[in-house]
Amino acid sequence: MTNNTLLDQLNWRYATKKMDPTKAVPQDKLDIIVEAIRMAPTSSGTQPFELLVVTNPEKLEAIQAAAGGQAQITDGSHLLVFAAWDNYSKERIDAVVDLNVEARGDLPKLHAYYDNLKDNYVPRDAEVNYAHAARQAYIALGVALVAAAEQEVDSTPMEGFDPAKVDEILGLPERGLRSVVLLPLGYRDPTGDWLLPMKKVRKSLDTIVTHVD
Amino acid sequence: MTNNTLLDQLNWRYATKKMDPTKAVPQDKLDIIVEAIRMAPTSSGTQPFELLVVTNPEKLEAIQAAAGGQAQITDGSHLLVFAAWDNYSKERIDAVVDLNVEARGDLPKLHAYYDNLKDNYVPRDAEVNYAHAARQAYIALGVALVAAAEQEVDSTPMEGFDPAKVDEILGLPERGLRSVVLLPLGYRDPTGDWLLPMKKVRKSLDTIVTHVD
Repeated sequence: MTNNTLLDQLNWRYATKKMDPTKAVPQDKLDIIVEAIRMAPTSSGTQPFELLVVTNPEKLEAIQAAAGGQAQITDGSHLLVFAAWDNYSKERIDAVVDLNVEARGDLPKLHAYYDNLKDNYVPRDAEVNYAHAARQAYIALGVALVAAAEQEVDSTPMEGFDPAKVDEILGLPERGLRSVVLLPLGYRDPTGDWLLPMKKVRKSLDTIVTHVD
Repeated sequence: MTNNTLLDQLNWRYATKKMDPTKAVPQDKLDIIVEAIRMAPTSSGTQPFELLVVTNPEKLEAIQAAAGGQAQITDGSHLLVFAAWDNYSKERIDAVVDLNVEARGDLPKLHAYYDNLKDNYVPRDAEVNYAHAARQAYIALGVALVAAAEQEVDSTPMEGFDPAKVDEILGLPERGLRSVVLLPLGYRDPTGDWLLPMKKVRKSLDTIVTHVD
């Protein structure tokens, strides 16, 4: 493993434009990436999204057609689809409470906390709640990008797709889910990727960091 | 360093409830965390947020008052504030183009890409653009949480604050920024933190992962 530190990993990774369709991500590396997503922190521990790991060729082709034909979707070996809850509900939060009780015991503090959360979330507009859930999926996306780089697996975060079509392809509406972001996993094709030789572009520290001291 | 792998780091970290006010994060570790945030990927490389590193005691107390008095804000040694662009604009995207031209050369493809982005983004409602920018900040938040854990620095992601008040305290509106999420950094107080001895709670793989194969 040459990507020893997080900064090594962040410098190694890039939004891979051309993946080698002959190379598949091995199961043990996929498992680590998925486990990292599962362990990613979320607001109040609700984990308000699910992960779909798509390898079915027909589904991948249909998703690709709903994503402007981006080649990585079928050239990669696995497509991760982050799908956020379309809303918060009493039932969904109660399931989180049950899990907490199971792990930590039936603490009054715990019930009070999530009762308050339900009072706040459940009456809110579904779009507000979906937007909040989608942000949590983006924390996991950040973690997944690091996890892939640690495993020297390439990945390409993608927002450029028709979410309604992807939702339909994967049967998400009936599960109360909405697709948020796609992440194909695979291996870069060093001879076919125009982006690989290009210098990474980031703003300077001076541009994006302010010290309030 | 005992947190060798990402999964070690994700298991080590937790949303620290009580930090030790006598321990400060050393500069070299802070620098690595900030650098990881700078290197975090964002949609079309726009990096549509800024990072404020707050150590000023008066500002920290004012932010704490706008965040329900959460102790970590003043017990930690540094408060990171992720502040997203309140909107996309021609000027902001042109600055990204300039940076790309500087690093990669004056490629026609590059101009075409960002011209298209401007056509899409600039006419959109400011709230839609802010929401998109805020999601990018959440990718960096995910990366920052990992960076802190890698450095064995504790952190507590916080959404529970009044963003309008925090914006005012930090003078964000005049800079076209809106506070998205707070991340105090510091060191856990092992004797004072009720959460530390508790078992980490996460949903099972079966609950959150679906294989479409």
